[in-house]
Amino acid sequence: MRIIGIDPGYAITGFGIVDFASGKLTVSEYAAITTNAGTPFPKRLAEIHDDLAFVLDKYRPDFMAAERLFFTNNKTTGIEVAEARGVVILCAEQRGIPFYEYTPPQVKQAVTGYGNATKRQVQEMVCRILSLYEIPKPDDTADALAVAICAAHSIGNSVFNTGKVN
Amino acid sequence: MRIIGIDPGYAITGFGIVDFASGKLTVSEYAAITTNAGTPFPKRLAEIHDDLAFVLDKYRPDFMAAERLFFTNNKTTGIEVAEARGVVILCAEQRGIPFYEYTPPQVKQAVTGYGNATKRQVQEMVCRILSLYEIPKPDDTADALAVAICAAHSIGNSVFNTGKVN
Repeated sequence: MRIIGIDPGYAITGFGIVDFASGKLTVSEYAAITTNAGTPFPKRLAEIHDDLAFVLDKYRPDFMAAERLFFTNNKTTGIEVAEARGVVILCAEQRGIPFYEYTPPQVKQAVTGYGNATKRQVQEMVCRILSLYEIPKPDDTADALAVAICAAHSIGNSVFNTGKVN
Repeated sequence: MRIIGIDPGYAITGFGIVDFASGKLTVSEYAAITTNAGTPFPKRLAEIHDDLAFVLDKYRPDFMAAERLFFTNNKTTGIEVAEARGVVILCAEQRGIPFYEYTPPQVKQAVTGYGNATKRQVQEMVCRILSLYEIPKPDDTADALAVAICAAHSIGNSVFNTGKVN
């Protein structure tokens, strides 16, 4: 079972691909899709779409997972992040890849066993679980791997597809 | 010059297509792309993408315009509307159609001459400007025509492409 975790954004979209077999998680690839601040916003969305399509066609994951989005203070940025997230979800759907989402506490719980873990604790556990020598950079990549781990536990251990977006 | 105005949403995406020539505005088509509440959200995004792509390929507008999005109270719905809006912008960009956006007061001002006009006043002026017998339904369609009228004035009367999203 191969899962791609995504941390969507219009400037940086982190992704991490993990394989889950015989109860063991291994990392296949992780990186970030970045777009330039000087590029018109519609073109940035198209770049995210095209680059992610390339990744999905190359690695052919069985599932995509992302954190559920909540808006807090920076409402303008939030809209553009959500617009990029819509493009990411579309990209999965266009390839028949089921899309799952999890709340931040669900991801923290799955990775560290503690729903209020710090960002640093999550990143260190991502390293240990996936046997990485150092914390992946940028943070968006580590966050993407964290949600992929969460999805692997959730989908792999459950008869029911918890987290699936309907 | 042909402009498609859009009122994006994941349940209803209204669109209205107007032609602007020799200082005169005429309506070419208006309708709504609807998705079913029982359909999984990712599939609803794909339906919006595919249906809008069909409309754009059929009518080949020179510009696309939509109202700028602001979040108010219903934050959860807001995220999904923004996700749908991202798909709409992507659809335009994939066809090389420049995307413009305007604030609600800009649209009201352009259509009625008054930035604080009521929804009803805007709809009645849309009817008069486009010589329609009755207010288009659903409201999303009338709203889409209003932003198309705003864009026609803005783009048609200006050497500078005001409202263009960069």
